[in-house]
Amino acid sequence: MGIQYILEITGTFAFAISGALAVKDQKHQDWFGASFTAFISSIGGGTLRDILLGSYPLVWISDITIIYAIIAGILVTSVFYKFVLRLRKTMFLFDTFGIALFTIIGTEKALYLGVRPEIAVIMGVFTATMGGVLRDVMTNEIPIIYRKEVYATACFTGACSYLLLNKLGAERNTAFIAASLVIIILRILAVRYHWSVPKFFR
Amino acid sequence: MGIQYILEITGTFAFAISGALAVKDQKHQDWFGASFTAFISSIGGGTLRDILLGSYPLVWISDITIIYAIIAGILVTSVFYKFVLRLRKTMFLFDTFGIALFTIIGTEKALYLGVRPEIAVIMGVFTATMGGVLRDVMTNEIPIIYRKEVYATACFTGACSYLLLNKLGAERNTAFIAASLVIIILRILAVRYHWSVPKFFR
Amino acid sequence: MGIQYILEITGTFAFAISGALAVKDQKHQDWFGASFTAFISSIGGGTLRDILLGSYPLVWISDITIIYAIIAGILVTSVFYKFVLRLRKTMFLFDTFGIALFTIIGTEKALYLGVRPEIAVIMGVFTATMGGVLRDVMTNEIPIIYRKEVYATACFTGACSYLLLNKLGAERNTAFIAASLVIIILRILAVRYHWSVPKFFR
Repeated sequence: MGIQYILEITGTFAFAISGALAVKDQKHQDWFGASFTAFISSIGGGTLRDILLGSYPLVWISDITIIYAIIAGILVTSVFYKFVLRLRKTMFLFDTFGIALFTIIGTEKALYLGVRPEIAVIMGVFTATMGGVLRDVMTNEIPIIYRKEVYATACFTGACSYLLLNKLGAERNTAFIAASLVIIILRILAVRYHWSVPKFFR
Repeated sequence: MGIQYILEITGTFAFAISGALAVKDQKHQDWFGASFTAFISSIGGGTLRDILLGSYPLVWISDITIIYAIIAGILVTSVFYKFVLRLRKTMFLFDTFGIALFTIIGTEKALYLGVRPEIAVIMGVFTATMGGVLRDVMTNEIPIIYRKEVYATACFTGACSYLLLNKLGAERNTAFIAASLVIIILRILAVRYHWSVPKFFR
Repeated sequence: MGIQYILEITGTFAFAISGALAVKDQKHQDWFGASFTAFISSIGGGTLRDILLGSYPLVWISDITIIYAIIAGILVTSVFYKFVLRLRKTMFLFDTFGIALFTIIGTEKALYLGVRPEIAVIMGVFTATMGGVLRDVMTNEIPIIYRKEVYATACFTGACSYLLLNKLGAERNTAFIAASLVIIILRILAVRYHWSVPKFFR
């Protein structure tokens, strides 16, 4: 679990940065608002998953490292934000790694808690995306999952891939990495080639 | 419980349709957004009720049929949406049956879990209306309960009627049907004759 | 606990008034909307805290007095709203006492449930501010914590003061009152002298 834990903390850190950056274009963007938004973005998805599954204590309540990873993300954003803003592509990659990781971790945790695969997929997608959705609802933006890019859909596909590989008897680490790659590659290709999910009403 | 269960699944199906239709006028309305909105609309109210009451596992997590009823609602909306849109009146009736049913089910569940009648009324109204409220918050609409029609108020009156009938010793099925009819009739009359709840500030 | 309980009920009552007043400038402001908003404003923060901590039953579900304090707040606002609106300064003081009280109560409850001090601070701030945030999200306002005044920051400072006094061995009531005063004085000075939290992006 060593590597996975480091990745998880790194993912939380990256999500905190993207959360703090989200107040950039807001009229009101003081330290408290930025910190709050960073906090919500990072832990919102996992928190919602655990509340829905009734899994207590919540991860960030029992492991204080997560709170400090978020604080680090906020401080880094504040001190280096001009630099961070120039790193758009790096940030995009961080975010993409983050949602990939969180999707599979969320799916696994739900499975581990004994729910059906369909529910595990929902929990995986929620873990990765609901932090961003809460952030957007708070800052009066249109929630990220309604915007054009293939975002939640990549997570959905990744979670399904993980379950499929699982069912086909793939070793856990292999399934983890392969399913994460599905999400990462899908998202990168989607942004690169302007893919979008088909419209619901034609 | 046979008939009630079928009604519940039908109500979930109807709420999923109205949820998917809610993205119609949004700029961003891909498959994922529509599905997510349908999902939130259908299970949001009951989920909030169960989280507030600490009643686990959540209904849709333990009974996968609910998820499939939602998926069916999404598919039907997508394939037949021109038809569905023409069925405004039918949809209104479906929705009205849905909120009536969900109000009484929510009230009953809360009572069964041992809370006071005042709390049971709140839970009944929440079960019926908070899915729509969450949908509206997500899609940046003014939440349904703030809009003019007698909507939540009908649920409130129905939940109170149920409790009253209960207290007066009415048989459970009688109370269930009578209280549902109170909601249905109140809502239909309200829309028909443009009733509205008195303004709070005169 | 006698005095504290009375203060808590008074705080709930005051928050209900400010919640009901929040629909004043909304286009849609019927009785149900005002009552719902009052309800959310008063119990939203404590409810979120208890859900995050997995502490059941929720306070307002086990103690019906809270519901009646909210109803009283709604009725008073409706009957005397012209009077209430003229009492801006009094309302501001009520609200300030309210957030001070709720911050410390929230911090104490979290500590009592065995979480780390960092988490207790978060819970204290959430108890005081998230009701207002939920109210603002519901009524499509920019959430209060993003607005300029030193609001959540005062709660944060107060919660930290409480923990510090606690650690320094101060008697519980002394710590409670001193930390509350920190919040009250900080907020009054902030409004009086137009203090604001430093901008996150300079």
